Amino acid sequence: MSEKDEKSTSSVDYRGLGKDVFEFFTHRTAFNSAAYLLPVLESITKSNPGLRLLDVGAGAGSVSATLAQVIGPEGHVVCTDLAPSVLPQAEAFAQSLGVTNISFQTADVHKLPFENDSFDVVHCHQLFGHVKAPSDAIREMLRVLKPGGVMAAREGDKETEIVWPPLPGMLKWHKFDSDVVIAHGGSLTAGRQLLSWALEGGAKRSQITVSYGNWLTTEEATKETYARGISKVLTGPTRQNALQFGLSEDEIDEICRDTLAWVDREDATWLMLQTEIIIRK
Amino acid sequence: MSEKDEKSTSSVDYRGLGKDVFEFFTHRTAFNSAAYLLPVLESITKSNPGLRLLDVGAGAGSVSATLAQVIGPEGHVVCTDLAPSVLPQAEAFAQSLGVTNISFQTADVHKLPFENDSFDVVHCHQLFGHVKAPSDAIREMLRVLKPGGVMAAREGDKETEIVWPPLPGMLKWHKFDSDVVIAHGGSLTAGRQLLSWALEGGAKRSQITVSYGNWLTTEEATKETYARGISKVLTGPTRQNALQFGLSEDEIDEICRDTLAWVDREDATWLMLQTEIIIRK
Repeated sequence: MSEKDEKSTSSVDYRGLGKDVFEFFTHRTAFNSAAYLLPVLESITKSNPGLRLLDVGAGAGSVSATLAQVIGPEGHVVCTDLAPSVLPQAEAFAQSLGVTNISFQTADVHKLPFENDSFDVVHCHQLFGHVKAPSDAIREMLRVLKPGGVMAAREGDKETEIVWPPLPGMLKWHKFDSDVVIAHGGSLTAGRQLLSWALEGGAKRSQITVSYGNWLTTEEATKETYARGISKVLTGPTRQNALQFGLSEDEIDEICRDTLAWVDREDATWLMLQTEIIIRK
Repeated sequence: MSEKDEKSTSSVDYRGLGKDVFEFFTHRTAFNSAAYLLPVLESITKSNPGLRLLDVGAGAGSVSATLAQVIGPEGHVVCTDLAPSVLPQAEAFAQSLGVTNISFQTADVHKLPFENDSFDVVHCHQLFGHVKAPSDAIREMLRVLKPGGVMAAREGDKETEIVWPPLPGMLKWHKFDSDVVIAHGGSLTAGRQLLSWALEGGAKRSQITVSYGNWLTTEEATKETYARGISKVLTGPTRQNALQFGLSEDEIDEICRDTLAWVDREDATWLMLQTEIIIRK
């Protein structure tokens, strides 16, 4: 894979962040990040227990591994990411859950290394906001999906992200996190565009079911893993990345202090509109 | 009621808008705007069919009248608004549904004309975003609520409002609508503040259940009544108000054209984070 390809599509490595960052993304599971898909998976699994599910841009692999749990031991998940470096971590995560019906493979969403009509389910989570041609990515995901299969995607709309109470460090984190996405060519409005991208990618409106969510994941996971994880990450090796990106030592300390203070607030609220689509091929 | 009081609290008349505007707010019903409350009401109604429900800042009264349907003929709804001028319209709306277990009364949320512990349920919808002291309003609503009763509120967070595709006239409408709220002392961040306001108003965290919604109402109601209603309102008597507020004739025409074009788009999306709270006294 050329460097050019990597830059044009990567959802992960471009941030130059490490294991600790992926660790804190493990607050995402099938149960809190793909809940809209679970009833559909239950139905597919009943009629086709040996189904094959492709997860694209899976990062730390916590959603992939829990999807493998959901579909049961006769089914199989292929967990992919553009960045080879993250796959061993995803594999270790699956092992920690005792999940074995899963394999790991490098894959570029723009040139998936699979035949046409290969999978019963093709899934991604928070991918298109980091991809430069989302409708092309959807077209490619639909290519490897079997006729009668289901493609599923969930995208947050970062411009709608709200944190309350508005502790200064929380607002600085939001700005930093948004700036990083923009600096790498991502989109802060993926949620609102997802349906348009699906139509441009070749899906017909009648094939698409749309639903919406609010939380990043769940209140508990947002507090205990994500918010607490920010201060863990920013006091570890990733602190250097944040400094290089332009945050000052004081700003980083303020972010760490305020995210922890926020967790203990009775009125703690951290929301973002999430769009979820299911496409039946 | 003095003019000063009216200015400090009104949720309605301050815009100087007329019957046609309230007409287009009738897309709001108990079913699409108070769905989070319906299971609670069902439970209360079973044990106490003669319950009394107070609706505050009810405007066109379409939520009040449908709440009266939900609680059934033995229950009673007191539909109130600060603006006496809107109550006949609310009454006509209830009559059009054949709803008779409802009465109408002028009331200021900051000085409700009711005894302590008078109601089994106290409800409001999109009120606190137009009130200058929301936590005082909540304290007053809790005062007239019986011990063991339920207070319920739903507030949109206008800063999270998104319209897709971003037709220029749709964005102009969003800006105009937000500017009007700000010009009258309202808040564009009511949704994220609702839980804080409830705590400041005297509720304990353990008494409060929070949930979140996305749509303005439902997709169908947003398209057919709200979006189509905008062009109806802006080609009627309210056009003068919009001109006085600073929109040009061309801008108004663009809003009308684009809202109707938006309704027919396959990717039409119009969302806003909504916070819903239930407080058990």
